[in-house]
Amino acid sequence: MSGCPGAGEPADRAARVALTWLAEPGNRAVWTLVQQAGAPAALDRLLDGDIPDARLRSAVTARLRSGDPRRVAEIALRRADRLGARLVVPADDEWPTRVDDLATLELDAGGIVNQDTRPPLCFWVRGAPALGETLERSVAIVGARASTPYGRHVTTDMAYSISGKGWTVVSGGAFGIDTAAHRGALAADGRTVAILACGVDRPYPAGNSAMFDRIAERGLLVSEWPIGAAPFRHRFLIRNRVIAAITAGTVVVEAAARSGATQTMSRVLALGRPAMVVPGPVTSAMSVGCHEILRGHPYARVVTSATDVLEEVGRIGEYLADPPRGPEHRRDSLDEESALIMESLPSRGALTPEELAVGARLSLRTVLRRLSLLEMAALVVRTGDGFALSPDQRPIRHSDE
Amino acid sequence: MSGCPGAGEPADRAARVALTWLAEPGNRAVWTLVQQAGAPAALDRLLDGDIPDARLRSAVTARLRSGDPRRVAEIALRRADRLGARLVVPADDEWPTRVDDLATLELDAGGIVNQDTRPPLCFWVRGAPALGETLERSVAIVGARASTPYGRHVTTDMAYSISGKGWTVVSGGAFGIDTAAHRGALAADGRTVAILACGVDRPYPAGNSAMFDRIAERGLLVSEWPIGAAPFRHRFLIRNRVIAAITAGTVVVEAAARSGATQTMSRVLALGRPAMVVPGPVTSAMSVGCHEILRGHPYARVVTSATDVLEEVGRIGEYLADPPRGPEHRRDSLDEESALIMESLPSRGALTPEELAVGARLSLRTVLRRLSLLEMAALVVRTGDGFALSPDQRPIRHSDE
Repeated sequence: MSGCPGAGEPADRAARVALTWLAEPGNRAVWTLVQQAGAPAALDRLLDGDIPDARLRSAVTARLRSGDPRRVAEIALRRADRLGARLVVPADDEWPTRVDDLATLELDAGGIVNQDTRPPLCFWVRGAPALGETLERSVAIVGARASTPYGRHVTTDMAYSISGKGWTVVSGGAFGIDTAAHRGALAADGRTVAILACGVDRPYPAGNSAMFDRIAERGLLVSEWPIGAAPFRHRFLIRNRVIAAITAGTVVVEAAARSGATQTMSRVLALGRPAMVVPGPVTSAMSVGCHEILRGHPYARVVTSATDVLEEVGRIGEYLADPPRGPEHRRDSLDEESALIMESLPSRGALTPEELAVGARLSLRTVLRRLSLLEMAALVVRTGDGFALSPDQRPIRHSDE
Repeated sequence: MSGCPGAGEPADRAARVALTWLAEPGNRAVWTLVQQAGAPAALDRLLDGDIPDARLRSAVTARLRSGDPRRVAEIALRRADRLGARLVVPADDEWPTRVDDLATLELDAGGIVNQDTRPPLCFWVRGAPALGETLERSVAIVGARASTPYGRHVTTDMAYSISGKGWTVVSGGAFGIDTAAHRGALAADGRTVAILACGVDRPYPAGNSAMFDRIAERGLLVSEWPIGAAPFRHRFLIRNRVIAAITAGTVVVEAAARSGATQTMSRVLALGRPAMVVPGPVTSAMSVGCHEILRGHPYARVVTSATDVLEEVGRIGEYLADPPRGPEHRRDSLDEESALIMESLPSRGALTPEELAVGARLSLRTVLRRLSLLEMAALVVRTGDGFALSPDQRPIRHSDE
């Protein structure tokens, strides 16, 4: 939206805050409206009751009974100012562009949370470093709250070493593995970012307040929810998509069967990012989720140390020489293998990854990895069972002229 | 060789024993000679000094200084008879046909042991059950001698449950994980087989004698080496190929970095059999080898329980409706996917697995699994980087008639 007139100006910023208050972040209908019309116009439409999506309409109606969104936004922005927190929107230089890849995330079947996976409209940030730059070289380390001494030991060690290599450690601020990850990074005097599911003014859990203060001094507290927002249960699941999308890769250390970490991992895999798992004793309930991910996802990788982790995320750099900024430069910055795939795609119609592997003379694994990145870069689009060139990447044909 | 005149008769049996004494089992040159001329003629040629392979020639010359192979074989067979042990050769009904798949194993680069991977010429067996039948539904569980309580606990549990489901547990009789595997199976009153690297008259290590006696009562002690053979160090690595090939799949529980278990696993993977790994704490030196295998081999699978293991080996049955017996029936008994692959192969020339995946409209993973089995069944052969129909599977072309 950075190209929209007025993007990044006060009206745009306030509208994004109001929209996040009206509907939970990630809402597909809201995000689509903002993409089409810009945030202020989207807010106008919602306030006018011009909402085709029935679920969103009833949510907005209910919300409007408790306040005026424009007024709520105004207050939140003023309170943030007093607190030393700032709002970051896509038009800002410090916007972490990786989260926009959520736009390409396929919708899973299932509940509401699985549908609310669109990119954030804005972030509230506490801490000095620039958001995007801090997250450029970052790894998420997440896991169980009810962790074991083994899990916390491995996490602290890993976060300490990753941090020592100049990478930012991202986690969710919860007890257990998250806390060990933040603490490990702080112990190394490294940068760490807590992605919260509530306002940055009252990071949850309160038992970690001292740690949150230290994070805000050296790193960042980040949230999509406005100042004052409470950590409702469903918000953690919505938040998890940001942890998956904002980092170069995610490590899970200890997770119970079918837990939040498992859900985060499926987002990481869907985004084509390195999905890394620390194994543990098969006799430990807290490693069941980890082994479940490894058994269920052929692309999830075992990692046993910071070295393994940096080897996995380091590979990202091989694929796209430069993170794509605008559509005009995107194709020029492609690595050789991605270029081969682009050249193998027909001007009309789709090919399966297997067909592309043959056409581009690459391994299927390489093709799948590259396709994920090309899809994120909006150079290719997913069709039923294959991939095709994005409409704007198709060569101009004579008959079209 | 079951089709050779005289196969399975006393001269064939004695010659196989003599050949195993003259050169270590798995020797490529000896095995090729036996395939071409039969065991008695192969022995004659070796004793006449008609040996093109220089390494084998010097080994045989050295060996002949310490005795007459025919006489050694005669004594070994007589001693076996007194001990209640028997010799099993490929012509026997109880021959475990799966080991013949070693004939298709690609040679790795590297040392002597890596070249000596041909199928066994014979087995010495102590115990009542028929060898082939006992191993038909069998899983190998192997791992470190210097195991931890965690590894032994998991192994005992797993072996107990696998055994309780009617599967035979195969291991190597060593201290540590091997012992836990045998003991777990014995505790379930199940069948267990120890594949030894020395004579079945003196199973190694002697500290496990009581266990070996129990195994011989309910299961089998098996070795390629004649009665009286000592457990030389290099023999364990030669023996490992049999553990990999004789079972439906292999589980590694605890292994040090670059250990024997890692080598066994590479054989298992090369044979296209389920290669299963029990993860452990990343802080344990005894799990480093396990995680190394998982990181290095995309087809190695995490298993956490007997259920996981049986799920993996159970799949074997899906691929070939019936274990192929003779070449004439092999193609008829193919499952649909294997048949699709066979039909996709050209009458001359090879295709890569990726090309076959496209041609047969199957996933690459399916194609790779099926190709391994088709290769074992000698229906396809591996070429430089692809697969081709075996010469006897090629359709007769008019120009050839």
